[in-house]
Amino acid sequence: MAQSYPDDQASKLDSAIRDLIINYHELNATVIDELYEEPSALEFMQYVARNRPFVVRKGAEDWTAVQKWDSHYLLSVLGDSLVNVAITPFGNADAVLKEDDGSLSYVKPLERLEPFDKVIRYISEQESNQEKATPIKYAQTQNDNLRNEYSSLFEDVPSDIPFARIALRKDPEAVNFWLGNSLSTTSLHKDNYENIYVQVRGQKHFVIMPPVAAAAVNEQSISGTTYTSTNGDEEAELKVEDLKHTLDEPELIVPVPTWDPDFPDVRSTPYSELVKPLRVTLNEGDMMYLPAQWYHKVGQSCGDEGYCCAVNYWLVFPDLAPSSFAATYGSTMPSACEMQQL
Amino acid sequence: MAQSYPDDQASKLDSAIRDLIINYHELNATVIDELYEEPSALEFMQYVARNRPFVVRKGAEDWTAVQKWDSHYLLSVLGDSLVNVAITPFGNADAVLKEDDGSLSYVKPLERLEPFDKVIRYISEQESNQEKATPIKYAQTQNDNLRNEYSSLFEDVPSDIPFARIALRKDPEAVNFWLGNSLSTTSLHKDNYENIYVQVRGQKHFVIMPPVAAAAVNEQSISGTTYTSTNGDEEAELKVEDLKHTLDEPELIVPVPTWDPDFPDVRSTPYSELVKPLRVTLNEGDMMYLPAQWYHKVGQSCGDEGYCCAVNYWLVFPDLAPSSFAATYGSTMPSACEMQQL
Repeated sequence: MAQSYPDDQASKLDSAIRDLIINYHELNATVIDELYEEPSALEFMQYVARNRPFVVRKGAEDWTAVQKWDSHYLLSVLGDSLVNVAITPFGNADAVLKEDDGSLSYVKPLERLEPFDKVIRYISEQESNQEKATPIKYAQTQNDNLRNEYSSLFEDVPSDIPFARIALRKDPEAVNFWLGNSLSTTSLHKDNYENIYVQVRGQKHFVIMPPVAAAAVNEQSISGTTYTSTNGDEEAELKVEDLKHTLDEPELIVPVPTWDPDFPDVRSTPYSELVKPLRVTLNEGDMMYLPAQWYHKVGQSCGDEGYCCAVNYWLVFPDLAPSSFAATYGSTMPSACEMQQL
Repeated sequence: MAQSYPDDQASKLDSAIRDLIINYHELNATVIDELYEEPSALEFMQYVARNRPFVVRKGAEDWTAVQKWDSHYLLSVLGDSLVNVAITPFGNADAVLKEDDGSLSYVKPLERLEPFDKVIRYISEQESNQEKATPIKYAQTQNDNLRNEYSSLFEDVPSDIPFARIALRKDPEAVNFWLGNSLSTTSLHKDNYENIYVQVRGQKHFVIMPPVAAAAVNEQSISGTTYTSTNGDEEAELKVEDLKHTLDEPELIVPVPTWDPDFPDVRSTPYSELVKPLRVTLNEGDMMYLPAQWYHKVGQSCGDEGYCCAVNYWLVFPDLAPSSFAATYGSTMPSACEMQQL
């Protein structure tokens, strides 16, 4: 009495993916939860278990960093110490670039060590004078830099986020410092970390999408390239035309989302129109939890002094394992009898 | 510079599924966590978030039910009140049955209301005298029966499980009472509920598998059938040969796992051999958390008095959403560019 299946695997998989995305949005709000005080460890764990983000408005307003990190203070602490800065012609570090032949490449910034005082002044002056196109600088190494390169600032932030440490039973993997202006954009991507993000100066404008957007972001494996300077003088202030990107050697193939929810008709997939991106702006002193594997694209606006500054904590939930994702969507996964026909 | 994909969707999906199962077992133990005291709400939430089971050995040993539910007590409370009993020829309620023509059907038990005193005596006597094959009875309605049919026993168990109520912020959806003997087996299946299971008398022998086993269990959509009695006397004690199963009308097609990890070569899929079932026996007073969507097959052994008795709580984690499952396995899901080629 076994019922036989039709042979059209492809159409079955197609409709399973559509259902997955549609059901997700039916079950989940398309706005981010806004809290007005930090969650308890248990409440945080409930968000982690549901893989859902939240914002704590003014959750970090009492942090020393939020109180103190004006340019005068930052200059007094960091002075002319050398910091790693990402330099790009268009604010496009770690971004997809369309080549002249129509193909895509993934471009990484030129990285240079420059004196902090020069960097912050460059960023601020560029923000207030955007008539002439100049290369865009962004301190954004994401390599635990607040506990290393910027360790003299680390005492101004909590060494960890207590509710997250208690819930995840782990110290942060990395604590990062970010300094840039409104000309830099972080392209759509996802991270393997639970992310606690705190805005210190200026605003960040997030467009975020849950992991079910995997079918919508048109991930492609494309060649990695890196900006290099064609200016022989390594001390010279670079011009936009000095920056050329060249293929990485050895060749690097990177899986990259190529769809951008702000340009929904470009490089879309049949599933892109089903996804409902969430948009949220962080103001000074706001804290956001962005769950692991959420896609995010980030723009920014500057504070009074012409720069945007933020801190984030990357945490790992140990022994990661299938969870309620499967509980919700197990039934929409292709079943074994379908698999067998492959 | 975009790299093109090979066209063999099927082989790509096949290897993604293999990786999914293999990675799961690399990341997760193949034995169940054993605790010796109840977890806190936060610790429980960590298990829920990871979709991982645990046993609390002797976690319920102080419950009135575990202290008191001998046959004398149960008879004194329930007497000859009518209870719903599932009757099958082979202890195969809600099971896959192979028809003479080789096809499969899904067979549900004959359900009858019988006096409790008759039922418990029948179950016990059958346990001690298995020479003659007689129909097998199992009180197993799973319809919140401990708060309804057996409500006179409900005061002997906690009205909820505090660590689970606090963590999930919900009262139980159902509290169920189970009474049977070693001749009944619960076939492999999964539930949409978080499950807290407490053994009161006898033992339960669980074979459990995580949701990634979806590709291994050979789920098929098969016709529902139900045992009915061919004996015109509705009061008569039934014989095995009185029970015939017939197609449900209107026709009912049920998706059912048809692979049984205890007979691994029968109706296996190419993925069955990759799955590592966990086996755990609950003794009197033990408590188990079985996460939603875990496959489970359950056998049982009787206590001193020839019956096996258990209680379980079904709970729902509200606002269920994709979680760390995606975090772990996002990268093994077919990506959008693959989907587009469908």
